[in-house]
Amino acid sequence: MDEKFKPAKRVAGQKPDVWSIVNEAAAASPKQPIVNMGQGFFGYNPPRFILDAAKSALDRVECNQYSPTKGRPRLKKALADAYSPFFGRKLDPETEVTITTGANEGMLSAFMGFIEPGDEVIYLSNIEMPGGTIRYVPLQPPKNGATRTSSAANWTIDWDTLESTFNAKTKMIVINTPHNPIGKVFSKDELTRIGDLCLKHKVLILSDEVYDRLYYVPFTRIATLSPELAEITITVGSAGKNFYATGWRVGYLIGPPQLIKYVAAAHTRICYSSVSPLQEAAAIGFEEADKNGFWTPPSQRCKASIPEGGYFVLANLTKVKLPEGYDFPPQVKDRPRDFKMSWFLIVELGVAAIPPTEFYTDERAHLAEDWLRFAVCKNDDVLETAKDRLRGLKKWMV
Amino acid sequence: MDEKFKPAKRVAGQKPDVWSIVNEAAAASPKQPIVNMGQGFFGYNPPRFILDAAKSALDRVECNQYSPTKGRPRLKKALADAYSPFFGRKLDPETEVTITTGANEGMLSAFMGFIEPGDEVIYLSNIEMPGGTIRYVPLQPPKNGATRTSSAANWTIDWDTLESTFNAKTKMIVINTPHNPIGKVFSKDELTRIGDLCLKHKVLILSDEVYDRLYYVPFTRIATLSPELAEITITVGSAGKNFYATGWRVGYLIGPPQLIKYVAAAHTRICYSSVSPLQEAAAIGFEEADKNGFWTPPSQRCKASIPEGGYFVLANLTKVKLPEGYDFPPQVKDRPRDFKMSWFLIVELGVAAIPPTEFYTDERAHLAEDWLRFAVCKNDDVLETAKDRLRGLKKWMV
Repeated sequence: MDEKFKPAKRVAGQKPDVWSIVNEAAAASPKQPIVNMGQGFFGYNPPRFILDAAKSALDRVECNQYSPTKGRPRLKKALADAYSPFFGRKLDPETEVTITTGANEGMLSAFMGFIEPGDEVIYLSNIEMPGGTIRYVPLQPPKNGATRTSSAANWTIDWDTLESTFNAKTKMIVINTPHNPIGKVFSKDELTRIGDLCLKHKVLILSDEVYDRLYYVPFTRIATLSPELAEITITVGSAGKNFYATGWRVGYLIGPPQLIKYVAAAHTRICYSSVSPLQEAAAIGFEEADKNGFWTPPSQRCKASIPEGGYFVLANLTKVKLPEGYDFPPQVKDRPRDFKMSWFLIVELGVAAIPPTEFYTDERAHLAEDWLRFAVCKNDDVLETAKDRLRGLKKWMV
Repeated sequence: MDEKFKPAKRVAGQKPDVWSIVNEAAAASPKQPIVNMGQGFFGYNPPRFILDAAKSALDRVECNQYSPTKGRPRLKKALADAYSPFFGRKLDPETEVTITTGANEGMLSAFMGFIEPGDEVIYLSNIEMPGGTIRYVPLQPPKNGATRTSSAANWTIDWDTLESTFNAKTKMIVINTPHNPIGKVFSKDELTRIGDLCLKHKVLILSDEVYDRLYYVPFTRIATLSPELAEITITVGSAGKNFYATGWRVGYLIGPPQLIKYVAAAHTRICYSSVSPLQEAAAIGFEEADKNGFWTPPSQRCKASIPEGGYFVLANLTKVKLPEGYDFPPQVKDRPRDFKMSWFLIVELGVAAIPPTEFYTDERAHLAEDWLRFAVCKNDDVLETAKDRLRGLKKWMV
């Protein structure tokens, strides 16, 4: 096609994304059905009281039409009520909460609301954005990850690197706790130190806390550490992840009015408004979760013990030796070892897991190429089958 | 707050948007309840068979989890089947259709997929975008609009202006037919002439056809005029507008694979994926609409006859004289006459309508400042009340 019709650089020449590769491998595998522990979707439904709320909303005329761009008043109030105790202050539903189309679009709204070309963002996660420069500061893997099981807490921040990354252009830092894919929950000390750097350099904080009901160690929100940090922090949450409904696309942002105002303006430009009947259902979810005993400790809901939070387990596969000359397809053979390992497990064992280097830049990929990420938010029978199949890996262990 | 925390220019210093102003006026009006003919949401529910489909989807585990980023296979197939006859060729659901979070995010995906800083977009509508330069070419109002009722067809394209706006930097033109707020359906001749300009200058076409089931005169899709135009056109559609469910946020883009590929990549970056259970319901909607007699001629569904398409009527209010010294609030008093007229109608008569200069740049606002846009997709009793109340305007007519 004519050069004049070429796509924008931000989408041109992208490598095939990890989800496409894993789905293709799953379709091509002789081991059907595949045990899919790749994508972190739930293998079970949202609880009945929330599904019923969604169905009732579908019968109400106004719940099928546009919601206000900042979200339905009932959901904003339910969120303010649910989160005020965690934030240790009374949140104003009108000015300190705004609804987004999933957390992903919420984060984009935060970038569009504050980042200009030339600004820098310090980043510990996988979402890219147009405009601005991103400085990745990866978490360092445990030194003995190849030889023993270790806690996600052993993934550490390289403080020298982080401190030297702050400069006059730095506008925002993005943190993610509990962390995907590592499962690390940042400690209060770590967050205090990050917060001090941000206050010193006048840098906004975007705290991705979408796994905020799934942690197994004490969980701290950076916005709650001091009034000064509350003033510069936007917290990202997800009704989909809280209520086992990742396909509902209801996210939210919590922060002080002078920040929320602009991220809400950006959201209006991106999506106009978010899905109405499921906002109403999410509102009822937050209103009635306690009454329905829904917020039971996650240890009773998830079967993993090693991560500190989230619903992913990272497994180190250094000891697995891939057969020489194994026939990997083009989209995998030039990628790091974890992509090959992921393909191999799907085709040979029928278990799908995600290669974590997808979440790293090329030059940092070596930090994660011996690991695979398994989503464990699945039913018991799925987890049992996975266990049986993964025993087959012994054949290739050195 | 510190200068370093300032918002991005793209959201800073925006005027209050028209929706906020109208809602505020409605809340402040003594004439309660307000007859709201402002926003184009429906005053009635989606049809029963689609609501039932949504409820069934909510009971299925996979329909509550992430959809593929390009959309649910069933919806893509239903759309390809529904639109292939209109496009006069067999659409490939895998490569020529992609699902978005409403048409709004679909259009943003098209911009993010193709527009770089420095590129120019020729625009006839109201959505702004970051990066790139926008050249507005407004439609010219009917010359006798103040004195007689006229068809939306009398809003015309100024061809000299349009032709001189194309230049080497022009990357895309955005057209909207049936047009919001005017109700104009572009004729085959007009579209052919626009298409020729685009082929000559190698410019992509983004055709916003979200009112594609609501027209009262022959409706032509620019993508169907020739194979050459099909190759450079992305068509935007909306399940929410088709099925009276503006709050569902299910939109779609149809176009050739080499264009859809990149807009889908942009969509993945913006929203990741779109709402799952309502995608499934929309799929069933398109599959079963004919069987349920849903696509009845719009003239039997809507009560307006003057527009050529859409569900809005533009009324010219040149003859209404606003009382001198009337007390307009700050967010209205420095805006064009139509904003004042909108406020006045809400407060004095209890009828809300939208000032169309919101959709124009400041220097072009004079073209539309004597008009108001009324949404007529409301129940009969609402329309009757509106008629009664609007008779009250006579008092202020000159």
